[in-house]
Amino acid sequence: MQHPTFNFVPGPSALYFTAEHHIQEAVRKGIPSISHRSEEFKNIYRHTDSQLRNLLNLPDNYQILFAASATEIWERIAQNLVLQKSGHVVNGAFSEKCLQTAKDYQLQTEEVRAAWGEVQLAQPGSFSDDVEVIHFTLNETSTGAQYPVENIYEIRKAYPEALISVDMVSAAPVLPIDFEQIDCAYFSVQKCFGLPAGLGVWLINDRSLDKFRKNKESGRLTGSYRRLDRIADSARKFQTQETPNVLNIYLLGKIAEDMNQRGIQAIRNDGIYKSVLLYETFRKHPALKPLVLEEKFRSGTVAYAQCEGGAKRFVEALAQKGLCIGTGYGKLKEDCFRIANFPTHSRELIEMLCDELLKIE
Amino acid sequence: MQHPTFNFVPGPSALYFTAEHHIQEAVRKGIPSISHRSEEFKNIYRHTDSQLRNLLNLPDNYQILFAASATEIWERIAQNLVLQKSGHVVNGAFSEKCLQTAKDYQLQTEEVRAAWGEVQLAQPGSFSDDVEVIHFTLNETSTGAQYPVENIYEIRKAYPEALISVDMVSAAPVLPIDFEQIDCAYFSVQKCFGLPAGLGVWLINDRSLDKFRKNKESGRLTGSYRRLDRIADSARKFQTQETPNVLNIYLLGKIAEDMNQRGIQAIRNDGIYKSVLLYETFRKHPALKPLVLEEKFRSGTVAYAQCEGGAKRFVEALAQKGLCIGTGYGKLKEDCFRIANFPTHSRELIEMLCDELLKIE
Repeated sequence: MQHPTFNFVPGPSALYFTAEHHIQEAVRKGIPSISHRSEEFKNIYRHTDSQLRNLLNLPDNYQILFAASATEIWERIAQNLVLQKSGHVVNGAFSEKCLQTAKDYQLQTEEVRAAWGEVQLAQPGSFSDDVEVIHFTLNETSTGAQYPVENIYEIRKAYPEALISVDMVSAAPVLPIDFEQIDCAYFSVQKCFGLPAGLGVWLINDRSLDKFRKNKESGRLTGSYRRLDRIADSARKFQTQETPNVLNIYLLGKIAEDMNQRGIQAIRNDGIYKSVLLYETFRKHPALKPLVLEEKFRSGTVAYAQCEGGAKRFVEALAQKGLCIGTGYGKLKEDCFRIANFPTHSRELIEMLCDELLKIE
Repeated sequence: MQHPTFNFVPGPSALYFTAEHHIQEAVRKGIPSISHRSEEFKNIYRHTDSQLRNLLNLPDNYQILFAASATEIWERIAQNLVLQKSGHVVNGAFSEKCLQTAKDYQLQTEEVRAAWGEVQLAQPGSFSDDVEVIHFTLNETSTGAQYPVENIYEIRKAYPEALISVDMVSAAPVLPIDFEQIDCAYFSVQKCFGLPAGLGVWLINDRSLDKFRKNKESGRLTGSYRRLDRIADSARKFQTQETPNVLNIYLLGKIAEDMNQRGIQAIRNDGIYKSVLLYETFRKHPALKPLVLEEKFRSGTVAYAQCEGGAKRFVEALAQKGLCIGTGYGKLKEDCFRIANFPTHSRELIEMLCDELLKIE
């Protein structure tokens, strides 16, 4: 298969532009073979932890834990943090899967549901008072719908006993959030961070840990090597319970460092510029319009368009020029396309893509 | 930290000697950024599946599934395959952790227990008739004790209703086993396969799937994205439930292909030669003896020595020559060292290591 000049598929993403260098250097330095019980590994974890805290502006009462994937973290939240009931704001495939995971774990679930492409805001009163965790998806990758953080903070005030959990899989670190106003968040490394898949990052605060401890006392089964006290204890010593993906933990630290050097504000400003340009291009094109009709809910990291006459001609025409965009997700595949707007996609690249888009009839 | 010329630590291992080339080629080909829902990914999975089947001589009624780590697979076995009771042959840290995982999942457990460095064979009658899974560890990495496969086959005949599960983490593909006489096995890629950590491989036969289905009917909670029917269904289409470690699945296929080209018998013969040489070196050295006293139980992949006067001087003297051996595991750290004898460690390298060992007083 001939490979595209550039990859705009929203995950796995094109590698961040410094990733290849770091991979080669990692192999040269023997990183894949170091012991995860060594000082060298602890230093790597420490470095990654410190760079991420800086990049995300993470409060001190948070811990950074590693898992295999965000998918796994849905499960670990259900196992560790919920005894009976979780609430879910559902408006696409990934928020749906998080809900399904809770059901698989035989939890009672409550929903605020919207059609794909829409955002239905949660309200005080949307959930029962005894809901234990309320799940939000900051950026629903399957529909290009971004959830307003102000509403998340409002719901947290309305449910002071509950934990607020935010799926930041295709949001972190680009879409800002105030971690002091939530309790738990997670992302994967193969989206905005532009790394090979194989690492999930779980951010939890002390309220989450306290809830876990209460759950544990109830005798409820809370898992094994991903039991929250076990991973949190290990993390405090910059260790993991199992042999982790050492290479990816190292690479994440390097990419986070590169992003810190660029400056998160600069990255976010670029993101806004590119996002505006992409939606403006959809507006100008007679056959395109954003899937998300309300402008304030349009994703700043995944630009999603509906295509009159179907998406195929756009995807194919761009592919012929070496520009590989994503098709719509699932049921949206025929009629929509998706363009990743991640830190690795430069302004110039997005400008070129937009120019090419406008040439297609 | 100055890096050793060569790494004999039994995991994470030194990379297989072709791994670096495959990593660079993978990055060049854009493998880390391909979609796990693409034809290209299915072809990669297909290739890895086919090479592993060949290498391990896997019967057709087995499926090859991917997880994040062998540690995770302990958990998934407990979740999917056991309703009430599992049996465990325990003689070191890893067999102990597998047992602990079953206990964490609130299962009843039965044990055949030996001290570290020993092997206690299971007997017909060691476990209750209603035991559902019996766990063996083919190579206990923490003690260098290898379990005789003939006994595993015997126990399977004595417990025809039970599933036989074998931890092959530091055994596959070097230590042979007849998969027709077991039901479930698993390994990680960072031992004998010489790849970066971050992928576990789970081999299950149709009996295991049948047991899962029975368990599911009982209404027992069997997990979410790693529910066995879900991953097995995906695997049949060369897919995974979540975004997997695509890079490692690709690399595993390449390494397995290289090993097939070398020939598994040649690899095993080399392994035996190196193993004999290592234990012979321990015998010759006045201050060394194998930890495992009974020759027939000495590991063919991890050579473990007890050192009169402590292990430190051996580890340090060799490190100064750029030869990095492993310390003893856990409580054995002060008095023992471990030498990985994996396919990436050539005869010449092991010969050199043994010569250097004999120079140390």
